[in-house]
Amino acid sequence: MPIQAVVFDAYGTLYDTQSVAAITEEVFPGHGDLITQVWRIKQLEYSWLRSLMGRYEDFAQLTRDALAYTIRTLGLTADAATFDRIVRRYDQLGLYSDVRPSLHKLRDRKLAILSNGSPAMLNALVKHSTLTDVFAATISVDAAKVFKPHPEAYRLIETMLGVAPPEVLFVSSNPWDACGAKAFGLNVAWIERVSPQAMAEACAKGDLVSPLTMFKAIRTQMDELGFAPDYRIAALSELPGIVSRA
Amino acid sequence: MPIQAVVFDAYGTLYDTQSVAAITEEVFPGHGDLITQVWRIKQLEYSWLRSLMGRYEDFAQLTRDALAYTIRTLGLTADAATFDRIVRRYDQLGLYSDVRPSLHKLRDRKLAILSNGSPAMLNALVKHSTLTDVFAATISVDAAKVFKPHPEAYRLIETMLGVAPPEVLFVSSNPWDACGAKAFGLNVAWIERVSPQAMAEACAKGDLVSPLTMFKAIRTQMDELGFAPDYRIAALSELPGIVSRA
Repeated sequence: MPIQAVVFDAYGTLYDTQSVAAITEEVFPGHGDLITQVWRIKQLEYSWLRSLMGRYEDFAQLTRDALAYTIRTLGLTADAATFDRIVRRYDQLGLYSDVRPSLHKLRDRKLAILSNGSPAMLNALVKHSTLTDVFAATISVDAAKVFKPHPEAYRLIETMLGVAPPEVLFVSSNPWDACGAKAFGLNVAWIERVSPQAMAEACAKGDLVSPLTMFKAIRTQMDELGFAPDYRIAALSELPGIVSRA
Repeated sequence: MPIQAVVFDAYGTLYDTQSVAAITEEVFPGHGDLITQVWRIKQLEYSWLRSLMGRYEDFAQLTRDALAYTIRTLGLTADAATFDRIVRRYDQLGLYSDVRPSLHKLRDRKLAILSNGSPAMLNALVKHSTLTDVFAATISVDAAKVFKPHPEAYRLIETMLGVAPPEVLFVSSNPWDACGAKAFGLNVAWIERVSPQAMAEACAKGDLVSPLTMFKAIRTQMDELGFAPDYRIAALSELPGIVSRA
């Protein structure tokens, strides 16, 4: 069935969450990368845990909660103004370099974002990256009051865009998100940002003693959740070819 | 209201999951601790993700899936017999040293386990540690086909033991589990296995460059999920006093 809409995950797929490390490093010299990684892992955990508990709060709140956990746990402190300054950087994340040209080549389809981010976060992010006119819709799971990978989150694509799941290509770099979308019934392209070869080589070199390598070992490889993406791609530039062939 | 039943989480609370490091270290010298930590984090992630996806598989399967992910991601290999030998160690976890004497002092209440573990895993574990006669029930979330912290998992306590939530003290070392139980309405004691002081001191000493410290930073401190346990304890030996005063 032809692809009518290409829908992108935001964080880690279009926008580089590690780009907040500039501000965390400025505020906590020597700890920037680690804070960013722990912050991200707790942010995801809180989205899953609160969804399971039936205690939804929006992603802006979870992002603050996860940062508070990170700072406290690492034995650091930040005054309210500094805390807010770090959090605000989440609305100004950088785009991966392959985003803009790839979206341009896909402009004959409906393009959209489906993200855990709150409406305010996503609007700020899209505006900051001057992509407002590119997307037919910026869909926040906030409309379903549950986070991905719950099926009700992916159902919002059909609700908001009017395109049925078999006509949607969903694009994510997050392995659990790719599996969740596939379980729901979307076509799925997974961007492999760290190849298994690169991962294995880092481990073989002894980089396992590096916490950053360990975070990659947890977050970047395809998960064992009983589902596999339809396409594994190394860059977003592969998407126009996939869409035209489908 | 008096406490009629004391219900324990199993993994990380009564049984030390890090005790599988003996076998992972034997099979993969130099990697034992790290494999155990990544394995545990993926096991938990898969329990939350599959619950959210509505794609339940029992904890025995998730434990195998998480180990497969860990071995593959770190660029290692294990033949089927070795893989099975590692997994089987999960049925033979060691008890924390304070478990046996504390349970003995609590024997005038109903004692039970509520765990993510499959019935077969839990039965093997309880038998191996010769605690079969101590517990009125060993409750697996498998009966609800969803993992903690979903409310239906905690509801099994009343279903299986016939004791209402306000008369139950639930005990867990897992911060997310303590929060989930509190959100459901149980009385909750959280065992703080790594104090904030110890955590902060490890960070201040520069141990943040150690992956094991990073795993502790992710897993051991109280989460920011909008709920707080009723009791924070440093050891299970504090429980008899709490129960008799309640």
